[in-house]
Amino acid sequence: MRTVIKGGTIVAADRSYKADIAIEDEKIVQIGADLSGDKVLDAEGCYVMPGGIDPHVHLKMPFMGTHSADDFESGTRAGLAGGTTMVVDFCLPSPGQSLLEALEGWHAKSQRACGDYSFHMAVTWWSEQVFEEMQQVVDLGINSFKHFMAYKGALMVDDDELFDSFQRCAAIGALPMVHAENGDVVATMQQKLLAQGIRGPEGHAMSRPPEVEGEATNRAIMIADMAGVPLYVVHTSCEQAHEAIRRARQKGMRVYGEPLIQHLVLDDSEYRNPDWDHAAQRVMSPPFRDKSNQDSLWAGLQAGSLQVVATDHCAFTIDQKRTGIDDFTKIPNGTGGLEDRMPMLWTEGVNTGRLTPNEFVAVTSTNIARILNIYPQKGAILEGSDADIVVWDPKKSKVISPETQQSVVEYNVFDGREVTGLPRYTLSRGTLAVDDGRVCATPGHGRFVKRAPFGEV
Amino acid sequence: MRTVIKGGTIVAADRSYKADIAIEDEKIVQIGADLSGDKVLDAEGCYVMPGGIDPHVHLKMPFMGTHSADDFESGTRAGLAGGTTMVVDFCLPSPGQSLLEALEGWHAKSQRACGDYSFHMAVTWWSEQVFEEMQQVVDLGINSFKHFMAYKGALMVDDDELFDSFQRCAAIGALPMVHAENGDVVATMQQKLLAQGIRGPEGHAMSRPPEVEGEATNRAIMIADMAGVPLYVVHTSCEQAHEAIRRARQKGMRVYGEPLIQHLVLDDSEYRNPDWDHAAQRVMSPPFRDKSNQDSLWAGLQAGSLQVVATDHCAFTIDQKRTGIDDFTKIPNGTGGLEDRMPMLWTEGVNTGRLTPNEFVAVTSTNIARILNIYPQKGAILEGSDADIVVWDPKKSKVISPETQQSVVEYNVFDGREVTGLPRYTLSRGTLAVDDGRVCATPGHGRFVKRAPFGEV
Amino acid sequence: MRTVIKGGTIVAADRSYKADIAIEDEKIVQIGADLSGDKVLDAEGCYVMPGGIDPHVHLKMPFMGTHSADDFESGTRAGLAGGTTMVVDFCLPSPGQSLLEALEGWHAKSQRACGDYSFHMAVTWWSEQVFEEMQQVVDLGINSFKHFMAYKGALMVDDDELFDSFQRCAAIGALPMVHAENGDVVATMQQKLLAQGIRGPEGHAMSRPPEVEGEATNRAIMIADMAGVPLYVVHTSCEQAHEAIRRARQKGMRVYGEPLIQHLVLDDSEYRNPDWDHAAQRVMSPPFRDKSNQDSLWAGLQAGSLQVVATDHCAFTIDQKRTGIDDFTKIPNGTGGLEDRMPMLWTEGVNTGRLTPNEFVAVTSTNIARILNIYPQKGAILEGSDADIVVWDPKKSKVISPETQQSVVEYNVFDGREVTGLPRYTLSRGTLAVDDGRVCATPGHGRFVKRAPFGEV
Amino acid sequence: MRTVIKGGTIVAADRSYKADIAIEDEKIVQIGADLSGDKVLDAEGCYVMPGGIDPHVHLKMPFMGTHSADDFESGTRAGLAGGTTMVVDFCLPSPGQSLLEALEGWHAKSQRACGDYSFHMAVTWWSEQVFEEMQQVVDLGINSFKHFMAYKGALMVDDDELFDSFQRCAAIGALPMVHAENGDVVATMQQKLLAQGIRGPEGHAMSRPPEVEGEATNRAIMIADMAGVPLYVVHTSCEQAHEAIRRARQKGMRVYGEPLIQHLVLDDSEYRNPDWDHAAQRVMSPPFRDKSNQDSLWAGLQAGSLQVVATDHCAFTIDQKRTGIDDFTKIPNGTGGLEDRMPMLWTEGVNTGRLTPNEFVAVTSTNIARILNIYPQKGAILEGSDADIVVWDPKKSKVISPETQQSVVEYNVFDGREVTGLPRYTLSRGTLAVDDGRVCATPGHGRFVKRAPFGEV
Ligand SMILES: [Zn+2]
Ligand SMILES: [Zn+2]
Ligand SMILES: [Zn+2]
Ligand SMILES: [Zn+2]
Ligand SMILES: [Zn+2]
Ligand SMILES: [Zn+2]
Ligand SMILES: [Zn+2]
Ligand SMILES: [Zn+2]
Repeated sequence: MRTVIKGGTIVAADRSYKADIAIEDEKIVQIGADLSGDKVLDAEGCYVMPGGIDPHVHLKMPFMGTHSADDFESGTRAGLAGGTTMVVDFCLPSPGQSLLEALEGWHAKSQRACGDYSFHMAVTWWSEQVFEEMQQVVDLGINSFKHFMAYKGALMVDDDELFDSFQRCAAIGALPMVHAENGDVVATMQQKLLAQGIRGPEGHAMSRPPEVEGEATNRAIMIADMAGVPLYVVHTSCEQAHEAIRRARQKGMRVYGEPLIQHLVLDDSEYRNPDWDHAAQRVMSPPFRDKSNQDSLWAGLQAGSLQVVATDHCAFTIDQKRTGIDDFTKIPNGTGGLEDRMPMLWTEGVNTGRLTPNEFVAVTSTNIARILNIYPQKGAILEGSDADIVVWDPKKSKVISPETQQSVVEYNVFDGREVTGLPRYTLSRGTLAVDDGRVCATPGHGRFVKRAPFGEV
Repeated sequence: MRTVIKGGTIVAADRSYKADIAIEDEKIVQIGADLSGDKVLDAEGCYVMPGGIDPHVHLKMPFMGTHSADDFESGTRAGLAGGTTMVVDFCLPSPGQSLLEALEGWHAKSQRACGDYSFHMAVTWWSEQVFEEMQQVVDLGINSFKHFMAYKGALMVDDDELFDSFQRCAAIGALPMVHAENGDVVATMQQKLLAQGIRGPEGHAMSRPPEVEGEATNRAIMIADMAGVPLYVVHTSCEQAHEAIRRARQKGMRVYGEPLIQHLVLDDSEYRNPDWDHAAQRVMSPPFRDKSNQDSLWAGLQAGSLQVVATDHCAFTIDQKRTGIDDFTKIPNGTGGLEDRMPMLWTEGVNTGRLTPNEFVAVTSTNIARILNIYPQKGAILEGSDADIVVWDPKKSKVISPETQQSVVEYNVFDGREVTGLPRYTLSRGTLAVDDGRVCATPGHGRFVKRAPFGEV
Repeated sequence: MRTVIKGGTIVAADRSYKADIAIEDEKIVQIGADLSGDKVLDAEGCYVMPGGIDPHVHLKMPFMGTHSADDFESGTRAGLAGGTTMVVDFCLPSPGQSLLEALEGWHAKSQRACGDYSFHMAVTWWSEQVFEEMQQVVDLGINSFKHFMAYKGALMVDDDELFDSFQRCAAIGALPMVHAENGDVVATMQQKLLAQGIRGPEGHAMSRPPEVEGEATNRAIMIADMAGVPLYVVHTSCEQAHEAIRRARQKGMRVYGEPLIQHLVLDDSEYRNPDWDHAAQRVMSPPFRDKSNQDSLWAGLQAGSLQVVATDHCAFTIDQKRTGIDDFTKIPNGTGGLEDRMPMLWTEGVNTGRLTPNEFVAVTSTNIARILNIYPQKGAILEGSDADIVVWDPKKSKVISPETQQSVVEYNVFDGREVTGLPRYTLSRGTLAVDDGRVCATPGHGRFVKRAPFGEV
Repeated sequence: MRTVIKGGTIVAADRSYKADIAIEDEKIVQIGADLSGDKVLDAEGCYVMPGGIDPHVHLKMPFMGTHSADDFESGTRAGLAGGTTMVVDFCLPSPGQSLLEALEGWHAKSQRACGDYSFHMAVTWWSEQVFEEMQQVVDLGINSFKHFMAYKGALMVDDDELFDSFQRCAAIGALPMVHAENGDVVATMQQKLLAQGIRGPEGHAMSRPPEVEGEATNRAIMIADMAGVPLYVVHTSCEQAHEAIRRARQKGMRVYGEPLIQHLVLDDSEYRNPDWDHAAQRVMSPPFRDKSNQDSLWAGLQAGSLQVVATDHCAFTIDQKRTGIDDFTKIPNGTGGLEDRMPMLWTEGVNTGRLTPNEFVAVTSTNIARILNIYPQKGAILEGSDADIVVWDPKKSKVISPETQQSVVEYNVFDGREVTGLPRYTLSRGTLAVDDGRVCATPGHGRFVKRAPFGEV
């Protein structure tokens, strides 16, 4: 079967132009004028863009004997509903667990994904075994390794381990990533605040201020520099971390920063909401920051010092959040966002004049595809690319509401905000997942995307 | 006729891949595996890249009753010999002269160009007439206006005029450019140095230190910001100017910086050469800087805070240079570089690991094509693009020498340096200008490239 | 007669210690324990500090055929009431006028000053005569020359003149000062805003944004650097100017910045007050800035990158302000502040923990005395120093109100703010000007303070 | 007995003036014109300055079963010979050892000191006992606690311990100090280099590049910020650490940086000296840096972003150094400098025009006296201050040589350099230690100087 997207304006990271697109066997096979096919999707008045890639999600993430609420089915469906055709989850071995064994678990639970996905592997402990298995993980199609500098006593690794792992990444052609917060300081701050009687969600933000993120970012960069390897910093939320990244880049280092749509749009006043549930639902790490940081993040996307917009989608239900009802350190960390990332970014970024449509494509799809070494299979509208495509209607509006969302949780941190710019169609490898605005994603359609190692640095 | 480039690796700004290219009627008509054609160019072992674009040249530039030595024929031939398939010259109206009249003169003298070319229009004076003619200039296919903040009493305009002209650019969809040095300070420094008896080429560098460039860059950026228009800073030569550009970009401004290959590779020790001719041949503005600035410029290309590598090719003969034999202020400003830009940048940038081949393409061709709004007609290997292509042999070496160069001047600032990485073939709109390393450019083949105005900012 | 200040804690820029002070013949003659004298001032519970020096005031400044409202009598009385024992006014020759002639005028109108004073000389035009007279001005006890980079068509000088004058300063041991705003840009912005129909006080702030000040500061610094002379930047109001100063200092340059108490405490929301009079009364240049700049200025005082707090006291009556009732460019620029500088800075700086009492003394008195080369005659509590002393009661409070102020104008930009920390006594060369909180200053008591030139730089 | 210093120019941190000084009972009792006394020291043509304070020395420091070569006698004699009248050593408890017990040991070995001294206490391990003893240490006259972020497995403490100790410092009015290098990274780099066969002194510098110091400095600053306490960074050797300090100060934090005279003057080319002994004798941590860092350090002293010049005097004999003959990690870390600090700084700082004589006094004496809370007992020429005075002859020259030095080691890192500016007299609490250039220091004359805790921060 040949599907044709007709009458739209193709928007790539480097240019915009009018052309039709023909799709066969999951791939883009032709781009040109006046194409015809078995099935025609009308893109008149629309931008036709590479489907979004969200490189930072946690679906069915194990947590205190339960799991984050959205699984690969609901999570990828939410993504597709918002124009995101691929997600990258984090495989999290327990300390002591084989990376390979953990990976099997992740493959097992992603079977019903509606859209394509990949995994980053987390290095949560260190040993000869981990060192050896990292090569096997690369051979299995995973070229990125995540390191937590926070979550002391759980996922956190120390500087020694970071340095060893980063050197290992350099040797096997993999990209190290960090969650950058100083875990020692956070843990002490948490105890101090609890001891002072501060137990509510506002304590969460107080225990991990921007200084703590800026410091860890700076430290990870130094260690990457010593190891001679690029670095990807997830969820860059503040000027202090951004400054460290800029400073490194100005020395010629290859360091990437990933603001989340939440940090671009929301601020820490949310934690002072008198409604405990409201505040707790916004608890994530790093926390929302004061508004001045938003200017920094937007400018980073404009200047190219920050490259990727993600979500860290990790949704917990109201009940799960209430685990921390009398102790903020027990509130599960995470918010949703998968469905809202692209409409929110278009609304706040493109409609305001901050970003061009081409830059929107770059930061939602093309840049991360290049960084993760899956370009132009993903992240591109080119002949031969996977037909992961969103037909974007810049006039279509809606008000975000948990009532109408795909995520299984009962609330939404963007609840009540109006967005203008939404998918008319979303295609996952040529198959419609959004049809004229209606979500029709197919569980199990999604496939694991292998990512080849990088050449020598 | 159908020409096919076979067996090479296409290197674009965003990716590298193996494919053949078919060319018909001056355009790329097909990209794919196993193409055939009437004529086949063997690209085995080569990178196939968009031809270089040098956005900053002065060919047959009027000067003290004579002209810069390379004209459009020898200049564009030199470019093609080094893989550069398009140049942009500066149309320089005399103060009081109609822009349109000046433009006619520039069209007249470019008739024998071997490769494609365009013009920037200089705003060298200000009046209602200039204000009006700027729109006509845009209508004639020129979307960029150059302003000199130095050369007091000649080309220089003051802040008032800059602001008026920048606002005019904003209104008509044009991009303002600046030569950024504080002309008042330079003029005073020159007089002071002459009064102190410093008359040799070393005085040239002393009269225009990096501070003077940094200041003017900062000032132009502020004025562009007030006018609400992007800014292109030509020949960014030092950390101080680069810092001003970075600082602006970190606020979200759209400011572009253009290092020259000379400033990336050569330094101010050249002016202390005891041979007057040697030193005088290196006199250009801004002058070569001390070595520490080179790190800054390279890092800018790596980080994306600087986007384009140019030459400011403006060659003068030994005799012309000697006009300033006893007064450095009379030495004609300018050096060559058109033939050497790409081989030198490949050698010092790619072979050293500073830049990837994709970044090389970005900074020599694709970025400037996008900035000047001629992408993807130029700067791209895409179906439909002009067949301006260089087949780059990364193993081919030579030692740069005036004996073997295309430029008509008798010396070369890179004389004696070995480069590795040279064109096997250069094609200008499908026509061979370098054939297996042999220059065979055709005078008159080059055409003026119209550049459409920008949409609303 | 011997006056003794008993029981207080002496606070100097470098230390605090308990001691009494004995005064004879206008000088401090002894510092020690248990001193006795003819007259005793009780300083129990008080800090005894060097009287404040306000290096930036405009008393009876000529303006559109009239004068700023406070003259040397009311102005210096206001100063003394607030603990300021010396002011430095600006002698402003008309373009074309002899500096010496202008200076005579300034001496004439300062005869009834209640406290000591000095003058900065302004360079408002340039010629051989100005060049020559600058030496004579230095010989007459003035070692600082002010330059206006704004007020186009009136006081403004261009870069050429700046450079010439700065070089002259270097040669004669004088300190150049600048009012740093880009006058060309301001003038164009004013015309543009008026043309758009913006005629109210809000237009004042819109016509001279921080960018315009940052640029001019950066430019003046470069010119001072070329001239090899230190630079004093008056009324540094924003991060952008502060950044330029910091950047210069980090290269080892001797650049000083002077925030005003107004910019430390008030912000640009005042210009959006619907009451035209309220807004117009706050019109000064640079205008109040958005709040984020205040953090930058306070941090500058803490870090030492900014050294002096002044007022730019230039008070106009309600009627005078109304000259600009339908055109913001005609509103006379200036606000009061002389009486409030020290209490406001103590309240917002010391009582909040931002500054130590020693730092308070440094930024209100000692630093500027050193910069202006009158230390330790002024700015010090040392034997031999002039007995310009304030006995500061840190517990004394009041609410600022025009009803109770010394200035002759009918309003006060700090109206309604409570200050804690006020003079119990102020002594001008040993004579009481504030006696137990009651103002008793003597017109004509003030004397001109000669300032010797600097040694070789 | 009354000693009078006659005819000199007193140079304090804030001013220079001609006056005589009278001394009785170890104190300055009078400053004024034409003083007379029992004994007169001729200061004609000299500057009379507060004796230098070196806040960073290691005398008889325990090391691998032996000690650093200079003890309190030879070390303080060296200091006095060069104008330094007080040193501060580091009391280093072994991990597990009581702070109080260690302190007794330090008191015991300092009995023969020729000049005054104090101690910083090191926090080399952490426990309830250490927490409690810190208060007792403060009560015993020590208000500063040193923390090592390097020397893994020996003195190093981790971030947790830093944070706990910094908070404790805040509570008890003490100042935390750090040796800032990332010990984890250094240890790994050392192993890596040894594994690569790099065993010579050049490996020392390679194992601890500026990045490693910059990172640790940045981290310590963040932790101090969280703890709400000022921070003193010892031996700031590079731009990267200085940048972190500047950045903190620009946010209003109270952070101090201490360059060493070695880093101001010497560079890392020393480690490439083919003579193993020459190179090994320069091994210290942080190592000498490339020359570009020197500009940064000098500018810091000029701008006030760095405040103190020290030596980290820790001298080892040739034989001791040879412990590391086949393994750079075993070369004892340290160089001398106590005798040379002031003459070298005067020569390279004042004679070159970088620093004024007042700034020289500030950075060698007054600033650290204020930071350590012993001003004006020390660091001042004031009535009541200890008579620690150097009469400085700015014309006196010598060539530095181990032959003529006071230190017991056989070499000198400044060997062969000519200095101009040397003590004519040095007085330690009124007693001559240098008499007309001849060293006559008295062992046992030196006394422990108690330092009171700071008030609330
Ligand atoms: Zn995370
Ligand atoms: Zn995450
Ligand atoms: Zn130019
Ligand atoms: Zn040019
Ligand atoms: Zn002013
Ligand atoms: Zn003023
Ligand atoms: Zn150390
Ligand atoms: Zn040490």
